[in-house]
Amino acid sequence: MVRIALDAMGGDFAPSVPVLGALEALNDLPESCELILVGREEAIEAALAKHEVVHRNRFRIVDAPETIEMNEKPLAAVRGKRTSSIRIGLELQKNGQADAFVSAGNTGATMAASTLLLGLYPGIKRPAIATVFPTATRPVLVLDVGANIGCGQRELHGFAHLGAVFSRVVLGKDDPAIGLLNIGEEEEKGGQDVREAFETLTEDPGLRFIGNVEGNQILSGECDVIVCDGFVGNVVLKFAESVARMCLKVLERELSGYSSDQAVLSRLKEVLDHAETGGAPLLGVRGVSVVCHGRSSASAVKNAINVAVQSVERRLTEFVGKELARGVA
Amino acid sequence: MVRIALDAMGGDFAPSVPVLGALEALNDLPESCELILVGREEAIEAALAKHEVVHRNRFRIVDAPETIEMNEKPLAAVRGKRTSSIRIGLELQKNGQADAFVSAGNTGATMAASTLLLGLYPGIKRPAIATVFPTATRPVLVLDVGANIGCGQRELHGFAHLGAVFSRVVLGKDDPAIGLLNIGEEEEKGGQDVREAFETLTEDPGLRFIGNVEGNQILSGECDVIVCDGFVGNVVLKFAESVARMCLKVLERELSGYSSDQAVLSRLKEVLDHAETGGAPLLGVRGVSVVCHGRSSASAVKNAINVAVQSVERRLTEFVGKELARGVA
Repeated sequence: MVRIALDAMGGDFAPSVPVLGALEALNDLPESCELILVGREEAIEAALAKHEVVHRNRFRIVDAPETIEMNEKPLAAVRGKRTSSIRIGLELQKNGQADAFVSAGNTGATMAASTLLLGLYPGIKRPAIATVFPTATRPVLVLDVGANIGCGQRELHGFAHLGAVFSRVVLGKDDPAIGLLNIGEEEEKGGQDVREAFETLTEDPGLRFIGNVEGNQILSGECDVIVCDGFVGNVVLKFAESVARMCLKVLERELSGYSSDQAVLSRLKEVLDHAETGGAPLLGVRGVSVVCHGRSSASAVKNAINVAVQSVERRLTEFVGKELARGVA
Repeated sequence: MVRIALDAMGGDFAPSVPVLGALEALNDLPESCELILVGREEAIEAALAKHEVVHRNRFRIVDAPETIEMNEKPLAAVRGKRTSSIRIGLELQKNGQADAFVSAGNTGATMAASTLLLGLYPGIKRPAIATVFPTATRPVLVLDVGANIGCGQRELHGFAHLGAVFSRVVLGKDDPAIGLLNIGEEEEKGGQDVREAFETLTEDPGLRFIGNVEGNQILSGECDVIVCDGFVGNVVLKFAESVARMCLKVLERELSGYSSDQAVLSRLKEVLDHAETGGAPLLGVRGVSVVCHGRSSASAVKNAINVAVQSVERRLTEFVGKELARGVA
């Protein structure tokens, strides 16, 4: 039995989008998966009432009277709102009543609450947010994308191991190729932190480090995992989302005169739309916690639930613990 | 008379692409513009021989026996190859025989030689590379995109003034809106350098600072100028180029069955192709020096020549000097 707690109040369109995402996820998930919708019971029931619910026996509702809003200061909100959906959802995991938590709500608050309630592995100071970018050939995991600013070689080295485990265990890459995001391929490129990380990564026999990669190589399919400081990772992630949206807009405009437009657009949307690959795990926490964008669609929420299910089924937490005990100095 | 020295040996397809770019530029430039092709005379003549040259009286060739290759260490190459096209091209400007220099060659070498031969304004430690991104509404100037790593508030503040002048003088924006690239809109976001820069920029009455902007706002058309550390700027620039190429590839594949493909593709190429807006000025040098991508097409080279011509005609150097004397503490 895999039990996923879902923040039903998280995201710009809560509770309707998370609730729909949950219902869609249940259509495809095996019977052994149970969902726990965490949030204001009344609001969840109202959202459910809009759909024909065929899997009523496969989810339950846990009431959480408070909601942490998107613009609240994470730490203060987590400390102040003890009956918020984020806290209660993660407490279920802490108390052994759930195996994973998924939220499209305030990412900072989910990070803070995950750290507080689940704890971190030794040597990890903050969880890393890992996100999957689609490429023409294979998905690439990029971390960190916003949780850690000003990373030294120690953090970057940690990201490489966290990313490698996730790539192996959840994404199914046997021997993931790791790249270090930099502004040139030569080892002397970049600031001191990145140069030191290059050295550490090169010397680590437990990683298949393929060297520095530049911005144009993120989507080239050369790497399975790319590690970077959270500042640059966050900028690139948000930039990528905006470019995808801009391309779609241009295409919709340009193609509107052609009868073939729908087929082309839907194919391109599939390639570009982050929703297809949404669901960013917080790596380094002693448990499974997956965040998604506040603007997530139901299919993005569904995808994040799938990431959580696979992380639990494939025992990500156990493997992360082993990797960190073995790998990082 | 505006005299532009062009590095005929610069770029992956030199001298043929720079030479063709020069010929194309001359078709549109006024009679008062003269080009100086700098490089191995024989090679330039051979490249010219492939075209019908109608403006032979509007350019001249200055022989430069040596060429700095793309992969050479910039400083060593500039010091060692005293008769390279990059050095000789910039010496023409230093000696008053040219008003600007354009190169698609080794960017680091062009930066080093520009610094050495033209000098920098007081308070500037290294030139900033500024690049124009096309957006749906107006072009946005982003700097730095790779020359300055680990920028403090002082550098970022300087970029804001350099970008503002270029935007006003060359791009014709009366009162350019300046954004600071960050991972959130709130002023407490980002590392120390960025937070300090936020404060300095807010307090500077000589700048229209609109605040922090995130990765998804680079192309939103809200800003005329975006300042950032060269590491993140470089990653985003290269990423953007690769995304544009990926989108085109997907489209070419997806649209290949439709008769309408050519019109749509060429329109999208126009929007996406960096060549249309290529030509990145090195700001902070006492003169005009414009670099473009090694992979530049002839039209990108032509565009870089246009950027150089406009910088000279509109007296960019003079205005940069005034702005820096007045603006930056």
